[in-house]
Amino acid sequence: MEFFEVINKRRSVRNYTSKPVPKEVISKALEAATLAPNSSNTQTWDFYWVKTAEKKKALIKACLSQRAARTAQELIVIVADPTLWKRSNEALLQYTDEIKAPPSMKIYYKKLIPFIYSAGILNVLAPLKWMIANIGGLFRPMPRGPNTSKDIQTVCIKSAALAAENFALAISAQGFATCMMEGFDECRVLKILKTSWSARIVMVISVGEEAPDGTMGPRFRLPTNLVVHEI
Amino acid sequence: MEFFEVINKRRSVRNYTSKPVPKEVISKALEAATLAPNSSNTQTWDFYWVKTAEKKKALIKACLSQRAARTAQELIVIVADPTLWKRSNEALLQYTDEIKAPPSMKIYYKKLIPFIYSAGILNVLAPLKWMIANIGGLFRPMPRGPNTSKDIQTVCIKSAALAAENFALAISAQGFATCMMEGFDECRVLKILKTSWSARIVMVISVGEEAPDGTMGPRFRLPTNLVVHEI
Repeated sequence: MEFFEVINKRRSVRNYTSKPVPKEVISKALEAATLAPNSSNTQTWDFYWVKTAEKKKALIKACLSQRAARTAQELIVIVADPTLWKRSNEALLQYTDEIKAPPSMKIYYKKLIPFIYSAGILNVLAPLKWMIANIGGLFRPMPRGPNTSKDIQTVCIKSAALAAENFALAISAQGFATCMMEGFDECRVLKILKTSWSARIVMVISVGEEAPDGTMGPRFRLPTNLVVHEI
Repeated sequence: MEFFEVINKRRSVRNYTSKPVPKEVISKALEAATLAPNSSNTQTWDFYWVKTAEKKKALIKACLSQRAARTAQELIVIVADPTLWKRSNEALLQYTDEIKAPPSMKIYYKKLIPFIYSAGILNVLAPLKWMIANIGGLFRPMPRGPNTSKDIQTVCIKSAALAAENFALAISAQGFATCMMEGFDECRVLKILKTSWSARIVMVISVGEEAPDGTMGPRFRLPTNLVVHEI
């Protein structure tokens, strides 16, 4: 499907038909998700495709039994986990060798990434990081964070959101529909996934074929000139 | 361009040619950005298209003078601002009338949205919100947040990231390239934009035509079976 057709077609669908979604459609969209840009290419994301009936039932309940979950054919959970920089770090170091990257890039992955992704137990390092950034920043441009563990989480959540958008668009491109759900009980979803305590649930995405009354109504957006500022 | 071709073509480009990017290309991509899904459709985002030479120069410096900014033809800043729910609230209430939405949706925008988007001065409401969510959550599925102002920020940043991805893909679909930059001095960028103190800079995106050595090397992603979990 043509790109802008996909952009226009993608709507949040809250009621699906009983038509099954082929496995390949989900797999292709998950692959598209992993191709999203992400912070320092650390790929601190995980994608859970919830297939077993029991887990699916529990997940629907954890999504407050909303219709977009109840009527969905497939449910995907997108997770961000700040500790996952460790999973990609060695491979990224190898990659810098393969592409004959400048030494600064190797140092970046060896020294800077571990520093960026740590706040210490109970954020003990955060004040130090904050001071380095903000005292240095008085004299020259400096990134002001991430400092606290919440800041680091936000970086990872942002990257995972980019992947979520790729996923949703890729489903639309294949003729099916999605709903990105943020109305869920995060504690219960974490339990269903059996993830590490450091994981954050970014989005639960339901997938299916749009039912005739699938969307709430025509799309509503603020006028572009209210949100776009040319300066 | 075909959708999956766009997904595969989009790479983070850090060196651009001197070819100008037509105005229409940016406008079309900004429109695509505003069509991204977003939390409760509150559209708590702003898009700054930095055009004046002086501001552009300052923004490049605030982006640590990285090549992806220095060689860019256009620079767009994506902002998330939790207070912006107020901008769309009245229009959304009107919209619920227009689509003859169930009364629960009207209550949602009238009562629940103001509650969700407030943490009080110095997060004074956060402990109360946390208690409601977590005591209630013992008995039945309950959203566990957002409670603190940082949590609310994260919700808005997540939505703005979805828009950022639409923007980047829409630029690729029109034959140009982007780099999503997170390496910037947020304080300096906020000053350049003259935004409210509540705004957060989500992403600075540079745009241009990819130079022959535009990307770092071939794309590197972890094997899909490491990040996709079928459960």
